[in-house]
Amino acid sequence: MFDFKITSQNARARAGVFTTPHGSLQTPVFAPVGTQATVKTLTPAQLVELGATLVLSNTYHLYLRPGDDLVAELGGLHRFMRWPHPMLTDSGGYQVFSLAQTRQIDDDGVTFKSHIDGSTHRFTPERSIRIQENLGADIIMAFDECSDPNDHEYSKVATERTHRWAERSVRAKRRADQALFGIVQGGINPELRAKSAQFISSLNTPGIAIGGLSVGETKDEMRAMLDVVTPILPEDKPRYLMGVGTPEDLIDGIARGVDIFDCVLPTRLARHHSAFSSEGRLNLMNASFARDPRPIDAECNCYTCRTFTRAYIRHLIVAKELLAGTLLSIHNLRALVRLMEDIRIYISEGTYEDHKASLLDKWENNASKNLNVPLNL
Amino acid sequence: MFDFKITSQNARARAGVFTTPHGSLQTPVFAPVGTQATVKTLTPAQLVELGATLVLSNTYHLYLRPGDDLVAELGGLHRFMRWPHPMLTDSGGYQVFSLAQTRQIDDDGVTFKSHIDGSTHRFTPERSIRIQENLGADIIMAFDECSDPNDHEYSKVATERTHRWAERSVRAKRRADQALFGIVQGGINPELRAKSAQFISSLNTPGIAIGGLSVGETKDEMRAMLDVVTPILPEDKPRYLMGVGTPEDLIDGIARGVDIFDCVLPTRLARHHSAFSSEGRLNLMNASFARDPRPIDAECNCYTCRTFTRAYIRHLIVAKELLAGTLLSIHNLRALVRLMEDIRIYISEGTYEDHKASLLDKWENNASKNLNVPLNL
Repeated sequence: MFDFKITSQNARARAGVFTTPHGSLQTPVFAPVGTQATVKTLTPAQLVELGATLVLSNTYHLYLRPGDDLVAELGGLHRFMRWPHPMLTDSGGYQVFSLAQTRQIDDDGVTFKSHIDGSTHRFTPERSIRIQENLGADIIMAFDECSDPNDHEYSKVATERTHRWAERSVRAKRRADQALFGIVQGGINPELRAKSAQFISSLNTPGIAIGGLSVGETKDEMRAMLDVVTPILPEDKPRYLMGVGTPEDLIDGIARGVDIFDCVLPTRLARHHSAFSSEGRLNLMNASFARDPRPIDAECNCYTCRTFTRAYIRHLIVAKELLAGTLLSIHNLRALVRLMEDIRIYISEGTYEDHKASLLDKWENNASKNLNVPLNL
Repeated sequence: MFDFKITSQNARARAGVFTTPHGSLQTPVFAPVGTQATVKTLTPAQLVELGATLVLSNTYHLYLRPGDDLVAELGGLHRFMRWPHPMLTDSGGYQVFSLAQTRQIDDDGVTFKSHIDGSTHRFTPERSIRIQENLGADIIMAFDECSDPNDHEYSKVATERTHRWAERSVRAKRRADQALFGIVQGGINPELRAKSAQFISSLNTPGIAIGGLSVGETKDEMRAMLDVVTPILPEDKPRYLMGVGTPEDLIDGIARGVDIFDCVLPTRLARHHSAFSSEGRLNLMNASFARDPRPIDAECNCYTCRTFTRAYIRHLIVAKELLAGTLLSIHNLRALVRLMEDIRIYISEGTYEDHKASLLDKWENNASKNLNVPLNL
């Protein structure tokens, strides 16, 4: 039911096709994040129109609200939110560590309090897999522990625990129509990362995720870790870099052998009035756009850029009209989806290495001004 | 450039075609309200898909923000907000009286303070027409004064002033591609209403609006005023009942000879989680919908009802996801647009009188629970 074929390769960059029960994904692919079973402000029809093929949703959030049992009763996540293409759920591990109010970790699992109402809950690997089975995404994740990358001692403990939890996740999984990916951890310690990559590879899951990056380490540290990890991973399985990222991170991650990405950045930036563009990131609230008759990005072919001026979008922002967030989300997501489309073509032509520098050049001013928030929520 | 043809008539109910520079409108027609050059939460593409043909925008709001000169510079309202079909702007009169912080009325015009920043502005009939010429809608309105319907003495003064302002509006108008409608006032005094209907008819504008209803009078008073006014108005011109209304008001208004309606009700209800339905109005936040696999209205053919369950929409509301407002706006607007489509068919078949009672029956529970706010803002 799950099959990954690499169709072209340029140095370490790969283009491929990953087959799932809800259709085939062309990789490299960027997944918009639909935390609460909705990519914020967008209808599934708008997502399909902008070219999205894979959507991620968050197990922690859906478990708390509306409840995974309710989603299962309504036919699963695809049917509940009416997303016709492949879906992915995370394990809830990262959110328990970053969002829940308090948490107590032991070797069996984590007890935490809901960020919504303070109620107490417990996740174990088995529980996370049960919840993800109720949700019914095509790709599900092993339960893991994401450590502070700068705390090496804690990283060792957390990585070891992540390995035990990955084994338990594999044993707990029952549905044949879901692919479980193990998650490589190891902080920013090269030996620990290598050890984790070897261990997770040994579990023979149909795909492998790289977790614990884009959580506070530097860009150079993230790149160094990718250079440690991807050469160890099996060639014939898709690699998913969780919670990444910026256009520059995607371009660079693909060159280092990554196939799948997700990030809240495009939609979160949109709600902060910020747009990717080939001129660098634009804050559309800026008064300089008040009478600007141009689209956000003359090179973009999204609905927003085909239809509206910067002046109109600024008006919507200043007038506090919600449509601004919708139009900017469409644009920012289309920018990353299209970047992936372009890169797939370059890889299939064998020209990705030639194009990489100019792509980085074009998009670098979009990467350097991150919102000051963790991105892989 | 403007032409109104009645194609069928059933007693006083009429079906017709009103030709404008941006295409022909089939009447009776309901216009969604796009106060700030956007029908809240919806793209023009979504409005076209749900069958909207006429959109109203507010002169008072656009004058203050982003400014009518800016809209003119960007090519006018159609181009600014990318609405391809006919548009209508009000004169700003009602908003000056209902929204502005303070106002001083004299026979020449009104001085008021902006509800946004307290700055002082002045509208006169000439100024209102200039602003509406800058905005560039197909149908524009004479500047009028809307009085408290229960204050008969004030109604007399305000109606007299509205007549002088209507004459000045007609003289001020310059653009041949805009149709200026005069507005009948007169509160709930039958003699004053009749006098106003006669006077406004004498101005020979290409359409006539009925203002000052749905502003605090009872339903019976509104109906009595329509029965006074519409028999006096010329048969061969479209009649526009401003700021109305509920499904029941539309059904009833058409039977009394009205052709055009607008109201914020469908989109405002949507933002309050409330949906029109053939079972009566539903509040989708209600816990009884938590596991309800049905669409909002099994008889509705909107995108929302074709696609999503009540359970999903309730989840979006509880999770404070903005998509809830978008999906409910699509549904509520489609409900009224489709009601107009059905009624046009009944009138063309000559069966509107037969269907009226069952339509009122079907929709009455949607009309009886108005939000406690004036609707024609």
